[in-house]
Amino acid sequence: MVDNVDMLVPSQRGVVERSAVKDGATSVDQVAVEEPLEIRVAGDAISITMRTPGDDQELALGFLYAEGVIGSVDDVGSAAHCGRPSEEGFGNVIDVLPAPGIALAPERTFAARRGTLVSSACGVCGRLSIEDLVARCTPLDDPSRMTAARLARLCTAMREKQHLFARTGGVHAAALFDMSGALLVLREDIGRHNAVDKVVGSLLLGRALPARARVLAVSGRASFEIVQKAVVAGIPFVTSVSAASSLAIDLASRMNLTLAAFARGETVNVYAAKERVVF
Amino acid sequence: MVDNVDMLVPSQRGVVERSAVKDGATSVDQVAVEEPLEIRVAGDAISITMRTPGDDQELALGFLYAEGVIGSVDDVGSAAHCGRPSEEGFGNVIDVLPAPGIALAPERTFAARRGTLVSSACGVCGRLSIEDLVARCTPLDDPSRMTAARLARLCTAMREKQHLFARTGGVHAAALFDMSGALLVLREDIGRHNAVDKVVGSLLLGRALPARARVLAVSGRASFEIVQKAVVAGIPFVTSVSAASSLAIDLASRMNLTLAAFARGETVNVYAAKERVVF
Repeated sequence: MVDNVDMLVPSQRGVVERSAVKDGATSVDQVAVEEPLEIRVAGDAISITMRTPGDDQELALGFLYAEGVIGSVDDVGSAAHCGRPSEEGFGNVIDVLPAPGIALAPERTFAARRGTLVSSACGVCGRLSIEDLVARCTPLDDPSRMTAARLARLCTAMREKQHLFARTGGVHAAALFDMSGALLVLREDIGRHNAVDKVVGSLLLGRALPARARVLAVSGRASFEIVQKAVVAGIPFVTSVSAASSLAIDLASRMNLTLAAFARGETVNVYAAKERVVF
Repeated sequence: MVDNVDMLVPSQRGVVERSAVKDGATSVDQVAVEEPLEIRVAGDAISITMRTPGDDQELALGFLYAEGVIGSVDDVGSAAHCGRPSEEGFGNVIDVLPAPGIALAPERTFAARRGTLVSSACGVCGRLSIEDLVARCTPLDDPSRMTAARLARLCTAMREKQHLFARTGGVHAAALFDMSGALLVLREDIGRHNAVDKVVGSLLLGRALPARARVLAVSGRASFEIVQKAVVAGIPFVTSVSAASSLAIDLASRMNLTLAAFARGETVNVYAAKERVVF
């Protein structure tokens, strides 16, 4: 497969106009698009997530990578929208077909984990999935180091490139930086976890996984799911503008992922794998 | 069933301590707890959500009410934790049993909607679920009205009572107000949708549903799922500190729910059912 993906151009499809009344006057607001995306593997629906349209191929592949359904772009024959676009032109179903000779078995991944009818949009399945993850991944042994000030500044650098957020005030972002602080990929989405899936999906398409010596910056809270996705992608640093949750800290500690939160100006709180941070 | 629930006391179980390094010095931070909750109906796992422990009964019942699995507290025989508490003492499985003579059929609700293995933590199942919801609910005909300034101020009033947020910086809140602006219920959770489920669950336990002449304030973005839960609970107003999504606006318009966002001081942007707002 592999369409060429421009890794820095944000989606042009994430905004629609809606009328609003403010102080008694009617105006037209730029509103972030939220639409469901059904992710199928060989025709079987695996997941539905509420997302901002525009990088659906990356989103689907990043999600399936995080879940262990695909291991590289070579497992994928195609990832294409199917069905009719909705009224505003968003294709809301994407089907991922395996490459010739490859068998993808998502039902084993999902059903074996739990026999539930409904699970999380973000692949979170509770404590059991921590054990799954620990079994599936080894703790990150990446020797990279970064100063606390640079870790904090990456969140500011990300903020300056959140174009969809600037227009709508209604989307999260995830961005990947190298150790010099250069921005490599930035994606925006109404869902925090989707933005991360899109970043990971773009790395998968660019054959850039595992992403050693990289930092994942996120605009929202650092929750379990965000750390989980970073661990699977091999990213040794996660830095967040907002708070980290208890389970995110616990997972990061266990997997030796450096977790920083409350990035403000030049400072940041470091909760796990602190030896990678230079103060 | 019905344990007595103090409707204004927030959970005492939402915080744990974790060590952090900031500016080279180690401290102990108050961190918001994130733990999975598996919701079962008569022993069958229906949903797993990442939540902040403490109002699990409300969360489970509010979720099942929003999903149409239960219609009133009379459908419920009990809602109790089962299994072993985790290391830090959180019971992460809750089982809801029907009242004598009542049959709950969640598998019909979920499986009929879609044949997917994995769906959203928040009960969102895409466009189809809008049609389900429209079929299941009638547009809100609540004649209540409120000034824009009061709608905006409710978010400030909520902020002052977010005790868990004040300690951790890491949780969302949802609060219910009456038309005079009096706070009736406030709940905090690491998940936006969980906070709303907890509020609705507390109303269910108090036999206060549908919640006519009420306003639901939310600390995060007003997304489809938030509006969906308010519609099912009969709440005619939703007001948000942050942005509203396209699908939230579209659903609110269709169900005649008054949707306000970007509450700042005395002003708010109104996107749907604007005639309930007095400027």
